[in-house]
Amino acid sequence: MDLKQAREDLIKLQMKMAAYEHGMGAISYDGETTAPKGTASNRAQSLAILSEEVYKMATGKETVELLEFLDENKDELTEKEQRMVYLLLKDLRRMEKIPMDEFVAYRRLTVEAQAVWEKAKHDNDFETFRPYLEKIFETTKKFAAYCEPDKDPYDYWLNEYEEGVDMKYCDDFFATLRSHIVPLLKKIEEKPQVDDTCLIGDFPEYKQEELATYLMKVIGLDMDHVGLSTTEHPFTTSLGSHHDVRITTHYMRDNYASSLYSVVHEGGHALYDSGSQDDLAYTVLDGGVSMGIHESQSRFYENLIGRSRTFVKYIFPKLQELFPEALKGYDAEDVYKAVNKVEPSLIRTEADEATYCLHVMVRYELEKAIMHNELEVKDLPEAWNKMYKEYLGVDVPNDTQGVLQDSHWSFGAIGYFPSYALGTAYGAQFIEKMKETVDVEECLEKGDFGPINQWNKEHIWKHGCLYTPKEIIEKAAGGEFKPDAYVNYLETKFGEIYGL
Amino acid sequence: MDLKQAREDLIKLQMKMAAYEHGMGAISYDGETTAPKGTASNRAQSLAILSEEVYKMATGKETVELLEFLDENKDELTEKEQRMVYLLLKDLRRMEKIPMDEFVAYRRLTVEAQAVWEKAKHDNDFETFRPYLEKIFETTKKFAAYCEPDKDPYDYWLNEYEEGVDMKYCDDFFATLRSHIVPLLKKIEEKPQVDDTCLIGDFPEYKQEELATYLMKVIGLDMDHVGLSTTEHPFTTSLGSHHDVRITTHYMRDNYASSLYSVVHEGGHALYDSGSQDDLAYTVLDGGVSMGIHESQSRFYENLIGRSRTFVKYIFPKLQELFPEALKGYDAEDVYKAVNKVEPSLIRTEADEATYCLHVMVRYELEKAIMHNELEVKDLPEAWNKMYKEYLGVDVPNDTQGVLQDSHWSFGAIGYFPSYALGTAYGAQFIEKMKETVDVEECLEKGDFGPINQWNKEHIWKHGCLYTPKEIIEKAAGGEFKPDAYVNYLETKFGEIYGL
Repeated sequence: MDLKQAREDLIKLQMKMAAYEHGMGAISYDGETTAPKGTASNRAQSLAILSEEVYKMATGKETVELLEFLDENKDELTEKEQRMVYLLLKDLRRMEKIPMDEFVAYRRLTVEAQAVWEKAKHDNDFETFRPYLEKIFETTKKFAAYCEPDKDPYDYWLNEYEEGVDMKYCDDFFATLRSHIVPLLKKIEEKPQVDDTCLIGDFPEYKQEELATYLMKVIGLDMDHVGLSTTEHPFTTSLGSHHDVRITTHYMRDNYASSLYSVVHEGGHALYDSGSQDDLAYTVLDGGVSMGIHESQSRFYENLIGRSRTFVKYIFPKLQELFPEALKGYDAEDVYKAVNKVEPSLIRTEADEATYCLHVMVRYELEKAIMHNELEVKDLPEAWNKMYKEYLGVDVPNDTQGVLQDSHWSFGAIGYFPSYALGTAYGAQFIEKMKETVDVEECLEKGDFGPINQWNKEHIWKHGCLYTPKEIIEKAAGGEFKPDAYVNYLETKFGEIYGL
Repeated sequence: MDLKQAREDLIKLQMKMAAYEHGMGAISYDGETTAPKGTASNRAQSLAILSEEVYKMATGKETVELLEFLDENKDELTEKEQRMVYLLLKDLRRMEKIPMDEFVAYRRLTVEAQAVWEKAKHDNDFETFRPYLEKIFETTKKFAAYCEPDKDPYDYWLNEYEEGVDMKYCDDFFATLRSHIVPLLKKIEEKPQVDDTCLIGDFPEYKQEELATYLMKVIGLDMDHVGLSTTEHPFTTSLGSHHDVRITTHYMRDNYASSLYSVVHEGGHALYDSGSQDDLAYTVLDGGVSMGIHESQSRFYENLIGRSRTFVKYIFPKLQELFPEALKGYDAEDVYKAVNKVEPSLIRTEADEATYCLHVMVRYELEKAIMHNELEVKDLPEAWNKMYKEYLGVDVPNDTQGVLQDSHWSFGAIGYFPSYALGTAYGAQFIEKMKETVDVEECLEKGDFGPINQWNKEHIWKHGCLYTPKEIIEKAAGGEFKPDAYVNYLETKFGEIYGL
């Protein structure tokens, strides 16, 4: 094989993969945003067939020979090419271990499961979703055993979503968080609660949509390459390359803050995804490197920026313009306090910053128990409700607001949740570092996201998947990850709001 | 080769093709409805790569051998299998004659051209679109020459959109139409014009959307399998199979009739597409057989049904409920007359039934001239405006309302337009036959589309592509196509409205 040709073939292979991903991505995105309700099995059929095609291409003789040849000659490759070959081979080795039929069947299962979950959530009917979820957990265990038979299956999946993370790591991290959050919540409980009536009212969808578009522009998204749609459970996805990124939101008629912060959260994902340097497009290095780093950006914009006093003050006139009745008699400080009201609640995505990680811990403990056969899926709702009582002190009235609230398990994302908490904590460390060179307050006063985004782009976004999460943390935070910045941030912010 | 295996492979091949079509269809549909403006070249890249994959699959040795084997053994195949093999081989033979690179480049070109056209239309800027259109016409000629070098290139394309149709056929058909329409218009001109002020007002999008959903239900679309989106130029498409069909519309703030009739028009396409018998799904026999038959259904629901007195009377209460101010003081008869106002105008899709075919004839004459090198694309706007003056007596104020109004040329649909006029005329013949056994008036009085749809399903929809357009006409009309029913219909209807 000729090295020059092989290097060209490496690019062609990735372009082809990107095109397939684009096709499958467009089918899925359509399914979650636009498609009529009865069409899931139609999509599942096409996605199953296309994933079989991808499987064949990715594990075929031609691909294997190409990647092995390049790997043998890696000293002659650029840093980027080396990383491409490494990631492609890693994926290939893993895929090879999963029989194609099972790989394809699982794809079909998760597409169908998403539609079933959505309906089950709507109808408060866990039983319909249960057989799907059982198969998903079962397959998750089986695939882990195929890929790394000697590793704990939950450790395997944690590492898939955030390289370098395992249960030991999570247990330590969550213990630290708990040791600060639990006393903090206790102190807050003893203080008078903040008033959040300025968030309540009647907010027609078209007005919330105008707010969403406004926010996307404020945080600096390129509207020519980032789109907005509605869905049941908000997410962000790229289609084809970082040149086309989509965020989604869900409007609640009686509450504008929910969509406001979901747009800023997904907007953070979209900034990251669309910030890859141009020459990474159509390669495996394009877009975000891990779910942890991804959540560090989404929750950075949502909370560290979006729930800051200065940002709320900046967007307040727009809120007044759109919702004059609801905001009559209130000022920016009222909204700031309202969107930072700490109160143990039922829904993770609506949770305040102080209680948020407790929601994540519930999911982590439950996943761990199921993956270790200490809990059966059929007993999950009961276990969920029990843990919500224990961790958050709330009674779960139904599965819609309980175990069925998140879409993640329906598409097989088991081991994903801890990255929300990790990313949240990474972000706090990043902004500390950012503030050494960027006047974040001044940016927010002016609504000029340029310097903030530039810093993130330089340290995080532009690298795409060129470095590991750990290396990205090094680059951005100037050292290894520590949860201190995050707990300090929580204690300072809520100490001030609640006068602790 | 084993026949049993070959028959199974035939089904598998088509399922695979359907999955690719689904992926590419989802990318295109997204592009025309949802995608941010700057993402066309990103889509073009993926679509080019995927069409290369399809080209390779459809013309590959394995496919050729399979189809040739089945063709040799066709006596042992079912009627459906025979038709599948025939259509697949026909496509294969044509594709083989077009070099793959040109095939793929053309796909890329038309995706990019659609975005360029949309912007050009918006900006009234033909010059930006011109080079794309030149290449499209050029390629159209070239592909015709590859596929049937001995045939006139325009005849080639006319036959592609409606099997059995050529210029001779169109010339005769249009001459007949003209000989009735021109005198009819002259007589109408001498009569007092109907009042259409009941159509004018301020109609927020969300209200028009409610009307659209209402109409979809009224005409009997299965909302679990047919979706609605917005776009620049309304169209209908299927994704994966007839189990997932999408219609699109475009809301005009000052006029609800435009979207009303575009929804009913596209609804007709969707009824046809989703009416294939179930076992045709994921085969080349799924969905409508030709553009002519397709338009016979869309224009059937739009005009023969949708612009009938009884239908307008049936939907009038809903219109009043949604638009009480605009309809204050008007009754159903006023709306009936308004939506049937005959007046030569600029925009084909907004044209009344009497002048509609003149718009089609303009496009037919221009396409013919370009395909025969008697007109250059650069001179198209001027020629367009001249013909609109000649055929419709109107002055075209700009290219947005002139040569740039339709999307068809941007995606390479040259030779398509005549099928609008043909389909319109087929429909008139079908409804005459339908009325022999179905009490259409009574159905419309009750808003019960069951018997109407059942008749169309039985005679047209369920067959998918199993029969040629000519055979479908035989089945539905009980004889060969004649334009008499259509001209009678026009003369009777408008004779009554205008008191001729």
